[in-house]
Amino acid sequence: MATVKKAGHTSIILQFPEGLKRNAIDVAGDIDAQLKDVHVQISGEPCFGACDLPSNPDGLIVNFGHYPIPNLAHDGEVLFIPARSNKDPIPIVRKVLPELKGRVGVVSTPQYIHRVPDIVDLLSDNDITPFVSKGDDRIFKEGQVLGCNTSAARAIAKDIDIILFIGAGDFHPLALALGTNKDIVIADPDMDEIRGIRDLKDRVLRQRHAVISQAKDAEVFGVILSTKPGQRREDLARDIVKDLRKAGKKAYIVEMENTSPQILDSFSATAWVSTACPRLAIDDHLAYNKPIITPPELDIILGKREWEDYIFDEIV
Amino acid sequence: MATVKKAGHTSIILQFPEGLKRNAIDVAGDIDAQLKDVHVQISGEPCFGACDLPSNPDGLIVNFGHYPIPNLAHDGEVLFIPARSNKDPIPIVRKVLPELKGRVGVVSTPQYIHRVPDIVDLLSDNDITPFVSKGDDRIFKEGQVLGCNTSAARAIAKDIDIILFIGAGDFHPLALALGTNKDIVIADPDMDEIRGIRDLKDRVLRQRHAVISQAKDAEVFGVILSTKPGQRREDLARDIVKDLRKAGKKAYIVEMENTSPQILDSFSATAWVSTACPRLAIDDHLAYNKPIITPPELDIILGKREWEDYIFDEIV
Repeated sequence: MATVKKAGHTSIILQFPEGLKRNAIDVAGDIDAQLKDVHVQISGEPCFGACDLPSNPDGLIVNFGHYPIPNLAHDGEVLFIPARSNKDPIPIVRKVLPELKGRVGVVSTPQYIHRVPDIVDLLSDNDITPFVSKGDDRIFKEGQVLGCNTSAARAIAKDIDIILFIGAGDFHPLALALGTNKDIVIADPDMDEIRGIRDLKDRVLRQRHAVISQAKDAEVFGVILSTKPGQRREDLARDIVKDLRKAGKKAYIVEMENTSPQILDSFSATAWVSTACPRLAIDDHLAYNKPIITPPELDIILGKREWEDYIFDEIV
Repeated sequence: MATVKKAGHTSIILQFPEGLKRNAIDVAGDIDAQLKDVHVQISGEPCFGACDLPSNPDGLIVNFGHYPIPNLAHDGEVLFIPARSNKDPIPIVRKVLPELKGRVGVVSTPQYIHRVPDIVDLLSDNDITPFVSKGDDRIFKEGQVLGCNTSAARAIAKDIDIILFIGAGDFHPLALALGTNKDIVIADPDMDEIRGIRDLKDRVLRQRHAVISQAKDAEVFGVILSTKPGQRREDLARDIVKDLRKAGKKAYIVEMENTSPQILDSFSATAWVSTACPRLAIDDHLAYNKPIITPPELDIILGKREWEDYIFDEIV
């Protein structure tokens, strides 16, 4: 933590993703012990990514578990400490080799992305042609996928037969499946498991179809605008309001830090378009009483896009 | 809205208390119709008072339903539009006259406070001596009570026999009862009802006793610090951490915009001290799985205050 002393910060805010919050007080204790004259505070806000930084930092922010978002300016200084997994991903990638052939896109998340070079070597040694892309300016590491950005996979989609995702959970693979329309195979070192994502993808697409139908007849739309700089698409929100009004609907921007059913239900809007985190509409679908759609889904309602050309909402 | 044009604001955020949010989109429509080149947005965040303003305003904020907090600086321009009730409070005050005698403190909220002069006249005409105080620097109007500040009643407590509260709900009367230890009579024009608050006060005090006992044995304390400028008591939070550590407990400040059971449960702390809105601990008690206490309640645990000297936590 030498940088902290040198930069003369007098306060540090520590920010943890949900899974690491239970250790927060112990980590804070370790840091406190090193820094005598610095106030150490923990952020209680949800943190699902580098897009989720406190908007009004009082000093240095230390964000655990994520890489920075290169094209996102921040009004304070942030130190990102990615949480690398101790598990070795090589054994599970060895197991998945028989399912791979030809040209394979390789993507991962901060837990395992430092092992991508080893995985690329392993694939090459087994007559597989690995493709790794650096993605767009929202992406920090080659081959990195975010819940809202699959550019590192989209960039190579036309060159590859299948995407190999190395990591835990279905959150990122679902983004890849919706974002690229490619087959995905998940090599999950945490569960020591190989699996696909097609069933989940198909279920989500059926849900989206239903939600879009539900929103179609709404007369009053709320347009969600996040106050978080990393999830704030203000021009898009304003364009959406214009489009909706042109189509004869009532529409207003409603700004919020985090979204909840209580917040949305307190307004008279009967449908919502979210310009905040694209995953709000997709993943939290069942928690909400009113339909929430993404901007490309609104285009389907407004006749600017066909259902057959459905695309995943991404922040670039 | 002439001020808006003159000041050259290009965006307005409208903020409504919960009860007025259902009209938000219509009000936004009225304002939009007057202002051609100004972006009108609605804040979705909960708004329980003038302490609850968006922390990062993009332009002018129009806050409905509250008076300003005079001693609270804000980094943007705010226009407060109090929501005066259309109901006439005089009939219900006439009804309550037989229950009053001697020296009576008069307090109210923005819905009816503009009628306090009329009420004072009515009391005087009936051989009652009304007392109205301007309160401390957090109070905008003579006789105004906030959910977190009863200074306008405390200032006259030694001079009066009873407090007359004119307004709706039990939220403010509970503050008065806990803050002053005086008898309170509520004249509620909305319900056309006269009632007391003693039962609720006694129940709350029994709950507080139970919560304090529960928190007593905790080894790890989280100290809630609000990111909202109007609810942010940073020095107090830091002092509490020092006090807790001196008493051999682990303690850390956890910063948040709004508090929820989910946020608190994600940390390993087994008890919480809230330096945010004092009503969080008192009113939301049943929603939380872990005990949340106020700073004066912590003093009881630390042996710096006796239970018999229990005081209501106020922001001054």
